Amino acid sequence: MKTGTIYGVGLGPGDPDLMSVRADRLVRGAKHVAYFRKAGRAGRARKIVDGMLLQDAVEFAMEYPVTTEIPLDDPAYSATLSDFYTYVTSRLIALADAGEDVVVLCEGDPFFYGSFMHLHTRLSGRVPVSVVPAITGMSAAWTATGTPVTWGDDVLTVLLGTMPETELARRMADSDAIVVMKVGRNLPRVRAALDRAGKLEQAWLVECASMESERAVPLVEAGDRTVPYFSIVIVHGQGRRP
Amino acid sequence: MKTGTIYGVGLGPGDPDLMSVRADRLVRGAKHVAYFRKAGRAGRARKIVDGMLLQDAVEFAMEYPVTTEIPLDDPAYSATLSDFYTYVTSRLIALADAGEDVVVLCEGDPFFYGSFMHLHTRLSGRVPVSVVPAITGMSAAWTATGTPVTWGDDVLTVLLGTMPETELARRMADSDAIVVMKVGRNLPRVRAALDRAGKLEQAWLVECASMESERAVPLVEAGDRTVPYFSIVIVHGQGRRP
Ligand SMILES: C[S@@+](CC[C@H](N)C(=O)[O-])C[C@H]1O[C@@H](n2cnc3c(N)ncnc32)[C@H](O)[C@@H]1O
Ligand SMILES: C[S@@+](CC[C@H](N)C(=O)[O-])C[C@H]1O[C@@H](n2cnc3c(N)ncnc32)[C@H](O)[C@@H]1O
Repeated sequence: MKTGTIYGVGLGPGDPDLMSVRADRLVRGAKHVAYFRKAGRAGRARKIVDGMLLQDAVEFAMEYPVTTEIPLDDPAYSATLSDFYTYVTSRLIALADAGEDVVVLCEGDPFFYGSFMHLHTRLSGRVPVSVVPAITGMSAAWTATGTPVTWGDDVLTVLLGTMPETELARRMADSDAIVVMKVGRNLPRVRAALDRAGKLEQAWLVECASMESERAVPLVEAGDRTVPYFSIVIVHGQGRRP
Repeated sequence: MKTGTIYGVGLGPGDPDLMSVRADRLVRGAKHVAYFRKAGRAGRARKIVDGMLLQDAVEFAMEYPVTTEIPLDDPAYSATLSDFYTYVTSRLIALADAGEDVVVLCEGDPFFYGSFMHLHTRLSGRVPVSVVPAITGMSAAWTATGTPVTWGDDVLTVLLGTMPETELARRMADSDAIVVMKVGRNLPRVRAALDRAGKLEQAWLVECASMESERAVPLVEAGDRTVPYFSIVIVHGQGRRP
């Protein structure tokens, strides 16, 4: 019997029409489909493929352990997650050993801040793994602003909303184009950092790029609402252009 | 009569299987197809869609003016290019005004260092324009290395091989993950900058990601060959991972 392959399939930013032809084919043909989700939630990646799966596809919902009572910087937090990844990896390996291919659904591009990476390191060398790249959330986000993000020799820096404000501000001041991922509840800090870097007026906020609820506005017009998990802040480069 | 739409369609990194479902559909259905190419060449974007176009599709090859005799920093260089972009834009507008949709083929993602951006600024507000994001060359490149590019709070900096060595080295030293685009004949400078930043040993060279001639090797093993236009240098982030 041939060992199965674990496919890490990037689904892109959310619109199924923006999945790659390969991802579309793998998803529609999959006998086994796995995806992360929070306990009691539908799963963000799973929602993207609604209506695309085979009627008799077997679904493996990899439910994150509830860690709300553990502080993020407590080693127990990391240990709990690590045990979880090891457990789901063993389940995937068992399927592959039984000759089954498994399609793991990934938001955006799997190797770009993706949770599949935690499976990938554990699967590598044990069973065949194949990664399908995808359109990132940031590509859909700058497309939604209607303005190109980098011109000529523009430097693009990708930052995380979880970083300290001083660090964010320093790097924002030193870059031409900026993408801030993981904005969500970190938006006030991101806004403050942009202000310190003198770039608040140029920044855009993009929520749910390529999804039905897509919204792209200059950040100063965004108001004080809380923004969804799928939010990105963008500052466009102004490099040379003939 | 309805004005036509100019579609800037990202084709992704090169493998037609990595085009989006939307791009695939637009390309296969297009009555008018436009693409940049160097005089006498097939055109890199055009090659990606070989065998996909309608039999009677009308092709508009937007041939770059020959500028080899003008130095890059001569204002005449920029002026010549600008005139060229204005000319092809007028041709595209004429087609749209005649009610025709036109699919402009773009390598990678159109808004990420893409030449379509020079048409986009000139078309905007004059005729309907629609941009289809795509998988970038860098996504295919880090996928080819078999290792995720960014973890946790890793900062990713995208640099251009055309930048001065000192500037490259300074930014390389200050980033977790690094992507260098436009490597080609700038490889010696990129290599020197990585060495000054103490990151030469960690760097990978990826040529023609997702194409038949794809090649991904640690940069120190790459030797002194000249590398193709489609080359990217990558340093992977080493951020936290449970
Ligand atoms: C864990 S990272 C995963 C990134 C993903 N692998 C990618 O390639 O885009 C999650 C963050 O990506 C960003 N993101 C992903 N898709 C998005 C979208 N469609 N619209 C806005 N933000 C998005 C948000 O900032 C979110 O907090
Ligand atoms: C003018 S930029 C266009 C970038 C493109 N719009 C994108 O989204 O990737 C051209 C540079 O992109 C990089 N590139 C694009 N596709 C590539 C691929 N498939 N393999 C390696 N490098 C690629 C190379 O560094 C090349 O010099």
